[in-house]
Amino acid sequence: MEKNRLEAFSDGVLAIIITIMVLELHVPEGSDISVLLPKLPVFLTYVLSFIYLGIYWNNHHHLLKAAGRVNGAMMWANLHLLFWLSLFPFATGWMGQNHFTPAPTALYGAVLLLAAIAYYILQSVIITQQGCDSKLAAAIGRDFKGKLSPVLYAIAIPASFFRPWIADCLYVFVAFMWLIPDRRIERALAERQN
Amino acid sequence: MEKNRLEAFSDGVLAIIITIMVLELHVPEGSDISVLLPKLPVFLTYVLSFIYLGIYWNNHHHLLKAAGRVNGAMMWANLHLLFWLSLFPFATGWMGQNHFTPAPTALYGAVLLLAAIAYYILQSVIITQQGCDSKLAAAIGRDFKGKLSPVLYAIAIPASFFRPWIADCLYVFVAFMWLIPDRRIERALAERQN
Amino acid sequence: MEKNRLEAFSDGVLAIIITIMVLELHVPEGSDISVLLPKLPVFLTYVLSFIYLGIYWNNHHHLLKAAGRVNGAMMWANLHLLFWLSLFPFATGWMGQNHFTPAPTALYGAVLLLAAIAYYILQSVIITQQGCDSKLAAAIGRDFKGKLSPVLYAIAIPASFFRPWIADCLYVFVAFMWLIPDRRIERALAERQN
Amino acid sequence: MEKNRLEAFSDGVLAIIITIMVLELHVPEGSDISVLLPKLPVFLTYVLSFIYLGIYWNNHHHLLKAAGRVNGAMMWANLHLLFWLSLFPFATGWMGQNHFTPAPTALYGAVLLLAAIAYYILQSVIITQQGCDSKLAAAIGRDFKGKLSPVLYAIAIPASFFRPWIADCLYVFVAFMWLIPDRRIERALAERQN
Repeated sequence: MEKNRLEAFSDGVLAIIITIMVLELHVPEGSDISVLLPKLPVFLTYVLSFIYLGIYWNNHHHLLKAAGRVNGAMMWANLHLLFWLSLFPFATGWMGQNHFTPAPTALYGAVLLLAAIAYYILQSVIITQQGCDSKLAAAIGRDFKGKLSPVLYAIAIPASFFRPWIADCLYVFVAFMWLIPDRRIERALAERQN
Repeated sequence: MEKNRLEAFSDGVLAIIITIMVLELHVPEGSDISVLLPKLPVFLTYVLSFIYLGIYWNNHHHLLKAAGRVNGAMMWANLHLLFWLSLFPFATGWMGQNHFTPAPTALYGAVLLLAAIAYYILQSVIITQQGCDSKLAAAIGRDFKGKLSPVLYAIAIPASFFRPWIADCLYVFVAFMWLIPDRRIERALAERQN
Repeated sequence: MEKNRLEAFSDGVLAIIITIMVLELHVPEGSDISVLLPKLPVFLTYVLSFIYLGIYWNNHHHLLKAAGRVNGAMMWANLHLLFWLSLFPFATGWMGQNHFTPAPTALYGAVLLLAAIAYYILQSVIITQQGCDSKLAAAIGRDFKGKLSPVLYAIAIPASFFRPWIADCLYVFVAFMWLIPDRRIERALAERQN
Repeated sequence: MEKNRLEAFSDGVLAIIITIMVLELHVPEGSDISVLLPKLPVFLTYVLSFIYLGIYWNNHHHLLKAAGRVNGAMMWANLHLLFWLSLFPFATGWMGQNHFTPAPTALYGAVLLLAAIAYYILQSVIITQQGCDSKLAAAIGRDFKGKLSPVLYAIAIPASFFRPWIADCLYVFVAFMWLIPDRRIERALAERQN
């Protein structure tokens, strides 16, 4: 019952973040189709951030399904994750409106990095709670994607100041890497049910 | 349990989209009743989009009720649908503020078309999961309305550039066609329960 | 199960409407306490609309608790109610920013009147579905408050153009009248459980 | 069942308030990293308010878990709390944009104080409903933190006009004091389950 409320609150915050981002796509003045063109970078960053938030929602969903009882540490680790995710609309809007210039691209990477670290902390809190024979720890295994992503973000941040397009490519690459859903946990849970 | 969370997240996103649209109805300057007149086209597009989102929520509700267990494909097909629906406030605001001129009217149709395709994909994913004796496939039958709608949107988009009012009439017509709730699924589900 | 989703969606929309209204309380320029004074009418209308939406949420909660199975008519009657409620931020912002001048005061009353009618329709749809021995119909009884409110709104709308303060007093009066929770339904439901 | 809906609505409102606050962090003009510097006070107040709302959500969650059946008084006490919390984005934005000058700092304290009083009322309503052998009353005990916080806010408000930084330090201090989750209720509930 308790976990339900944590999920409901997280779902609410994620749903609002994902929808509020679209407000950065300000309705343009003029009714000519050409006024949409300068909106393209904003639209593309919106698509990218939408995918990232979709991935977070998806993985968060698997994570909490694997979690046991909710405790204070888990609640705060979860709020900490939501905090960094709540900065997505700001980082997305700044990067989109400035057409992928260095500083906004670096900030976007920093928000991605901090959200990834927050996710890792939440995951660790749940594993710690479950103890040695943690089903989640077993399901995650070596957690290759979870370890590679922050490394790539950490490379992208300084790269933004020299070649922003390298950073942008890294962001797109990580998103695609995660689009493949986290079958490990899904499989492990299915096995447990058998 | 899992399906509950998918429904809750979708409900959250749809509730926010439907409510955020009203922010495009900016509070006018001046307190004379005449300042409301230029708001009329924005209000009318708001009404139309509200009805469309109501239809989507309604049908989405029937769709997920008929669905079985949630899998990764279903989650992403659902997010894909929510993505196109999240562009409703932008398309609605642009069309309303420009009094149904060609380009905004065409864009509105394009968003409707892409949302309809995304809905169709979600429906197909659920039917595929259920296999040959899919209750949902049986319930939908020939899916007349689901096939006619994208065709009408596809006609409306080019028509916007010649006679925008034809496109507007088509959008209103499709909305009215769907206002009649999808009794097919409702009936089929009721039969299954007997 | 179905009813849960209708409630969740309505809760989401109401929660967003109630919170979006606060955005009309724009953060003022300047840091002197005197810049808050012109915000007072906006704040007062915010308080009034918050109470109205609280009343609607409260009564809506009792209404759906008394309702049986959800059908298409109930869904659309519910969406119709949410539509008029979604215009609260607009009407509230316009009235607050124009310090209770005639036209905004009349519009506020019109939105209240249309929401009240939509609530009445939803209530009738639920009673019709329950048939002759409707528990809800018995619980509501003569529905004195439900019938008096639209009459008072209907008086307030023309009064706004002559003496806006009369309309404002009527709005405050109706809100206070409803603040007393709808014990009739509560009592009737408690009796049923015994 | 009833309590679920009260929780869901409160979660919705809190999720929206927490996310809407981020809209006060307007995307800056210019793409230089130096344009972020003037955003720092807004960011810091955002962090502080996020923590406060996280604390409220956390404690509210424990409070309702300890509550029994929902009645009208509880509903209105809850809406009253949500009302003051809904003013957080306004107070946060004003304080952040004015770099902790006296009046905005005092207003922030006033909103904190009124929310604390509203929380105390909600708590009292639940305890009253549970009667003499209230588990919640036993769990809260002397309620040291609950009584100290409003006192500190009440000191901070006049202090804002002389030394705003004293008020700011008090706000940060109270937040840290509460960050330690309310183990009393958690412990008491765990005991009840044994």
